[in-house]
Amino acid sequence: MDEIRLIEVKEEIHADNKVVAEKLRDRLKAEKTFLINLMSSPGAGKTTFILKTIEAIKGDFRIGVIEADIDSIVDAEKIAATGTDAIQLRTGGFCHLDASMVEKGLNGLDLSSLDIVIIENVGNLVCPAEFDTGAIKNVMILSVPEGDDKPLKYPLMFSVCDVLLVNKIDYLEASDFDTDVLRERVLALNPNIKIFETSSKTGQGIEDWAVWLRQATENFIN
Amino acid sequence: MDEIRLIEVKEEIHADNKVVAEKLRDRLKAEKTFLINLMSSPGAGKTTFILKTIEAIKGDFRIGVIEADIDSIVDAEKIAATGTDAIQLRTGGFCHLDASMVEKGLNGLDLSSLDIVIIENVGNLVCPAEFDTGAIKNVMILSVPEGDDKPLKYPLMFSVCDVLLVNKIDYLEASDFDTDVLRERVLALNPNIKIFETSSKTGQGIEDWAVWLRQATENFIN
Repeated sequence: MDEIRLIEVKEEIHADNKVVAEKLRDRLKAEKTFLINLMSSPGAGKTTFILKTIEAIKGDFRIGVIEADIDSIVDAEKIAATGTDAIQLRTGGFCHLDASMVEKGLNGLDLSSLDIVIIENVGNLVCPAEFDTGAIKNVMILSVPEGDDKPLKYPLMFSVCDVLLVNKIDYLEASDFDTDVLRERVLALNPNIKIFETSSKTGQGIEDWAVWLRQATENFIN
Repeated sequence: MDEIRLIEVKEEIHADNKVVAEKLRDRLKAEKTFLINLMSSPGAGKTTFILKTIEAIKGDFRIGVIEADIDSIVDAEKIAATGTDAIQLRTGGFCHLDASMVEKGLNGLDLSSLDIVIIENVGNLVCPAEFDTGAIKNVMILSVPEGDDKPLKYPLMFSVCDVLLVNKIDYLEASDFDTDVLRERVLALNPNIKIFETSSKTGQGIEDWAVWLRQATENFIN
């Protein structure tokens, strides 16, 4: 059976990956670098949201970004244009990042000069949820046009994240997205998740998220 | 290296899968059943689009649907509510369908009474593009809120599809999506792809797609 063989290999990789991820977290604690793994579907607004986050907190912390993409460098170019340290990882078809890949990205940054590093994972609600990247916190974006039924369909992603950003909230009126229903579905999977409603376009909620990020970074590096 | 081990296994699975897929296509030709593999990101509108397609062509052809989801049956319930034969495949965490899984779905339908079967693949722009499902045609949806840069980031998906539906076209005015730029990027990857601009909300483009589907089905079953 194809399925069984693939599952075995995935488990083996998961076991190896977990060890690499734990080592990476030890290193981040020693370096006092707060690593965030940002995940979402394609087109949910990760890169623009990172740009808004940099704008909001660049006066308080030194930030680096690791961009992951299957086959382009357009996102890292956008980040680097703001003067932020950015590394692009090209996964060459790979559908997610694992801890070894993230380690390679971190090795390309000068961690001693950075307080926060944000990983933009491959746009995918499935596979990235299965692999510990070594990050301190997992953050996901769900954009309003994707629909409020996504926790029913991709429960693992909503379960492994510490923060959910309900993004493109400016699309709310044009859609039948129900934020109450969404919250109920998400909290049933993950009662401790922190939820922010955000819009990179109007700026709504960005400062609420920045307050959380500043506090979480302070807690980690002090 | 984790990466190399995974790639070897994936290739092995691909080779097995290709054989199963070719056998499935032979069976579909014998049964005169036109099988479509519909792929997209999460939330691009696959299920609603299938409902609109059923509405448009149910007078002309007998249709069945295979819904794939990691962990829910909500989509198959929506399809079945229209009186259409629907099978739900739960992938249990799997990020894509392969030909063996599709075969299991087809075995649950009475193919002799169906002209068209539409597979709704797992919402994912990466992994489903790598696996031949045995379908006669691959069709993808890109929704306007996802952005016009997706062909740069997920080139394989745009390369393996016969039809691209640029969906939620009603969001065009509220976004900075450029349909000319999108077309250029898509055609550079896949000059033969057929592109339709559609909206399940306003109905725009649904009949153009239905004309294509009727013709392609006629060509296949006659």
